[in-house]
Amino acid sequence: MRRLEQQMTFVAEAGLLKGVLRQTMLTRPARRENSAEHSWHLAVMALALGDYAPPGTDLARVTAMLLVHDLVEVDAGDLFVYADAADQARQEAAERAAADRIFGLLPADQAASARGLWDEFEERRTAEARFARALDRLQPMLANIQADGGTWREHGITADQVLAKVALIEDGSPELGRYARDLVEQAVSDGILSPPRPVSG
Amino acid sequence: MRRLEQQMTFVAEAGLLKGVLRQTMLTRPARRENSAEHSWHLAVMALALGDYAPPGTDLARVTAMLLVHDLVEVDAGDLFVYADAADQARQEAAERAAADRIFGLLPADQAASARGLWDEFEERRTAEARFARALDRLQPMLANIQADGGTWREHGITADQVLAKVALIEDGSPELGRYARDLVEQAVSDGILSPPRPVSG
Repeated sequence: MRRLEQQMTFVAEAGLLKGVLRQTMLTRPARRENSAEHSWHLAVMALALGDYAPPGTDLARVTAMLLVHDLVEVDAGDLFVYADAADQARQEAAERAAADRIFGLLPADQAASARGLWDEFEERRTAEARFARALDRLQPMLANIQADGGTWREHGITADQVLAKVALIEDGSPELGRYARDLVEQAVSDGILSPPRPVSG
Repeated sequence: MRRLEQQMTFVAEAGLLKGVLRQTMLTRPARRENSAEHSWHLAVMALALGDYAPPGTDLARVTAMLLVHDLVEVDAGDLFVYADAADQARQEAAERAAADRIFGLLPADQAASARGLWDEFEERRTAEARFARALDRLQPMLANIQADGGTWREHGITADQVLAKVALIEDGSPELGRYARDLVEQAVSDGILSPPRPVSG
C-alpha cells in the first residue's frame, strides 16, 4: 500500500498545476491559460500533428514528455518565454529543485523514469524531445493569433523575437517550422505583430 | 497543406474544452474544474497508476483515450455524473452528434482513429477502456475528499450512490477499486459523505 500512497501523493500534487497561470491569453473563455490545460492541449496536438514528427519518432514518448514537462511549475511558477537571461538562469535552478522534489514523490523506479522524461525534454537532444518542444513553442503562437496579438501586443514583442522561437519549431519539425514562419509573416501583414526591429548602428 | 489546415482547425476547436466547466470543485485554486485540465490530470494518473491496470494493458492507448474522451463536451457540455436517466439519454445523443462533428474536422484517417478511441471508451469493452473509465471515476472522488465533501455535500450524495460508481472503478482495476472503497468508508466516518440511505418499505 505504501507504493500506492506515494503515487496518490504525486497525483494530488500534480493537480496543483491547474493553479499555475501562464502569460498566454485564451480567447474563449477570455482569461489566462493554466499550465495543466496547456499540457493537455500539447498532448492533443501530438495526436493530431504526429505526421510532422521525423520518421521513427516515438509519439507515445512525446506525449508522456508533454504531460510532465511543466510539472516543475507547481513549485517554480511559469516564466514568460521572452524573459531575460538572468531570469531564465534563476528559473532553471528553481525548476531543477522542483523536479527533485516533485518527481521524488513517486516510488523510486517511477521517479527515475518521470525525471528522465523531464531531463530529456529540457536537454532537447532526442527527436522526441525536439518535436515536443516544437509543439510547446507553436501552441502559444496559435493562441496569440486567435487573440489578435495577445501577449505579442501586450509586451511589444516584435517579429524577430518570435522568429527566434520559430527556429526551435523548425528544429523539431521542418513542416511545422515552415507553417509557423508563414503565420509570423501573416501576423505582421495583418498588423497584429510588429515587424522586425531595424538593426541599430 | 489541406491536411495540415484540417488538423489545425481540430487543434483550435479542441482548445475550447478549456471553457467547459465540470461539477468538480478544486481546492487550490478554489473553483470548478474544466474538462481540459481534468483530461490532463487523468492522463497523468495513467502514467502514475499504470501498475494497477490488468497485465498486458496498452497504457499508451489508455492515455490517448483519456486525452480525447471529453472532447465532445465542446458541443454537448458536461453532465453531472449523478444526473437522472432521461438527462443521461439526452446527453448521449448530443455527445454522438458532437463526436461526428468534432472528430470529423480531422483528415478522414485520423477522424476514424480518434472516433475509434472515443467509441472504445464509451463502450467499455476493452481492458484499456475499462482502466481509463476507472481513472475517470476515481479522480472526482479524490477531489471531493480534498474539498471536504465537495459535490457530495453540495448535492446531498450518499455513500450508496458513490459505491455504485466504485463498481466501475473495480471493473477497470481491482486494486484501485479497493482503494476507492476504503476512501468511501473513511469519508463516511469522517462525516464528509452521508451514510447509505436506509432501504425504504
